[in-house]
Amino acid sequence: MPELRKDPIIGRWVIISTERGKRPSEFEKGRPVPKSGFCPFCPGHEDKTPPEILAYRKDDGKPDTGGWHVRVVPNKYPALKVEGDLDRVGDGVYDRMNGIGAHEVVIESPGHKDSLSSIPTSQFEEILWTYRDRIIDLKKDERLRYVLIFKNHGEAAGATLEHSHSQIIALPIIPKRVSEELVGAQAYYNYKERCIFCDIIRQEIMQSNRVVAENADFIAVTPYAPKSPFEIWILPKEHESNFENCQKHHYENLSVFFSDILKRMDKVLDFPPYNFILHTAPIKNGSLNHYHWHFEIMPKLTRVAGFEWGSGFYINPTSPEEAAKFLREAKV
Amino acid sequence: MPELRKDPIIGRWVIISTERGKRPSEFEKGRPVPKSGFCPFCPGHEDKTPPEILAYRKDDGKPDTGGWHVRVVPNKYPALKVEGDLDRVGDGVYDRMNGIGAHEVVIESPGHKDSLSSIPTSQFEEILWTYRDRIIDLKKDERLRYVLIFKNHGEAAGATLEHSHSQIIALPIIPKRVSEELVGAQAYYNYKERCIFCDIIRQEIMQSNRVVAENADFIAVTPYAPKSPFEIWILPKEHESNFENCQKHHYENLSVFFSDILKRMDKVLDFPPYNFILHTAPIKNGSLNHYHWHFEIMPKLTRVAGFEWGSGFYINPTSPEEAAKFLREAKV
Repeated sequence: MPELRKDPIIGRWVIISTERGKRPSEFEKGRPVPKSGFCPFCPGHEDKTPPEILAYRKDDGKPDTGGWHVRVVPNKYPALKVEGDLDRVGDGVYDRMNGIGAHEVVIESPGHKDSLSSIPTSQFEEILWTYRDRIIDLKKDERLRYVLIFKNHGEAAGATLEHSHSQIIALPIIPKRVSEELVGAQAYYNYKERCIFCDIIRQEIMQSNRVVAENADFIAVTPYAPKSPFEIWILPKEHESNFENCQKHHYENLSVFFSDILKRMDKVLDFPPYNFILHTAPIKNGSLNHYHWHFEIMPKLTRVAGFEWGSGFYINPTSPEEAAKFLREAKV
Repeated sequence: MPELRKDPIIGRWVIISTERGKRPSEFEKGRPVPKSGFCPFCPGHEDKTPPEILAYRKDDGKPDTGGWHVRVVPNKYPALKVEGDLDRVGDGVYDRMNGIGAHEVVIESPGHKDSLSSIPTSQFEEILWTYRDRIIDLKKDERLRYVLIFKNHGEAAGATLEHSHSQIIALPIIPKRVSEELVGAQAYYNYKERCIFCDIIRQEIMQSNRVVAENADFIAVTPYAPKSPFEIWILPKEHESNFENCQKHHYENLSVFFSDILKRMDKVLDFPPYNFILHTAPIKNGSLNHYHWHFEIMPKLTRVAGFEWGSGFYINPTSPEEAAKFLREAKV
């Protein structure tokens, strides 16, 4: 059973995935993942994944058969297990609990060579609905507190399979970065009685030099203090803490907007590997006045100097104003 | 002038190093750094670095000539500038200040092919004294609050020059990870009136399964909730918040101990790239009852999936107990 353990000093939870325990010789030291010709995510190979959790199909096809356009399956090598109790226990100064949670894969398209920036926006919209539907469903599990949705695109960004997919990890804890945002945003709200993200959006629209794009409902900006070059945030203009509570037309609008942003990134940075992460409110809190859901997109452009990990201190060689200018002016 | 900018939500400061502002085409996308045959850190090339700040020499040689065994020079491409005022200003919801600080390189040995695990421990001790002397000197600058000392070893860990070196960044802010540790350790101290690191050391000695090695003054453990596999912390057994306040014999003892730990890592993990970071108290606080200096060593074994950056959530495929066992049993 995987274990969740808490750092007693800074309070960060990590997963110790003991069942896939790696011996020293099994680490790859940066060697490329060997590519097999076979893809378990392609249509016709539905029996090569664990049974599907959700799929959108054109017709009334049976589960685990073809005809789907988006398909969600359990991760074959899950970092967390769905079955069991949390069993939160102390051990001297330490805290741990069972690694209970869900680890799912969203297969974003049947086409093996498709990418989020190449698929039709109608297909992109389906993926956003999938995220929403999975959050709604995972919310029912009383043991869970957060649904983390993210994508690793390209080998350098951590993808181990080529076929376009994103991941969902549902956790009995709140990830550290999100809880830091919640604490910071709450402090600001206590002081100002305004959402800090709403204030940021207002200021960004006024100053305009960090705006990448804008439509009626969404804005994309390069954050004022980015941890990596060409980092982009996509935020809804109207206050909303929970991604899953968006109005129906927002998903449609977002799919067009998000696709445009990825195309700009491809244009300016020559199809970079990237990660994105959905930051949304924890599932048990209901709607929050002080939090504001958003996507954070980080193209993977620099060699990671590990000292950033250990210090939480980042050196960024490109200003967000310059990055925004390139992205804004890209012809797509 | 580089700029320090604060994320208004989570309070993390980052450097925007505008003067070496990178255009989109200048990022390397994971391509290896081109190796030139020429090394500016080798003896005889002293004029190829900025004038030295400090050097230990056997004889009374002149600055910027040969005969040194450890040499400290300003970084040729510094992330921060020494000259100027902080000029801390607000801009709506945002905060920024001038990127004032020092960015130095410690050339650890004259030998181009030397590494920390191959040099004599007497040479290693010199490097530790160098760290100490630089902290003492940088403390005098009223504008600065923290001296961050770290090493990137190997290209995959962010080193851009092969010749063994570490880096010193002196900052007008406290890096986020360190301030998190300070806050967490202070909370524990308020509650228990004991240093949490001292309690951790006591428990680790008792439980023994995460201990890598121990001598009279130091202990090396794999932390209970590591963010990466085979992460190792080296801590002084006796309470001390400031690295620069060690007793003289501690540096000697530490050089032997640290060298042994790196040899174990080389043996078990086949000479991995790694990073280490010195965590020590901020320079203006004096001695702290609740903080405890230590080194954190992180071999770079896994492809970094960028989602960890954006979520602060880590999945570790090796338990620290297993890692400690391998390291403890390594024959060196």
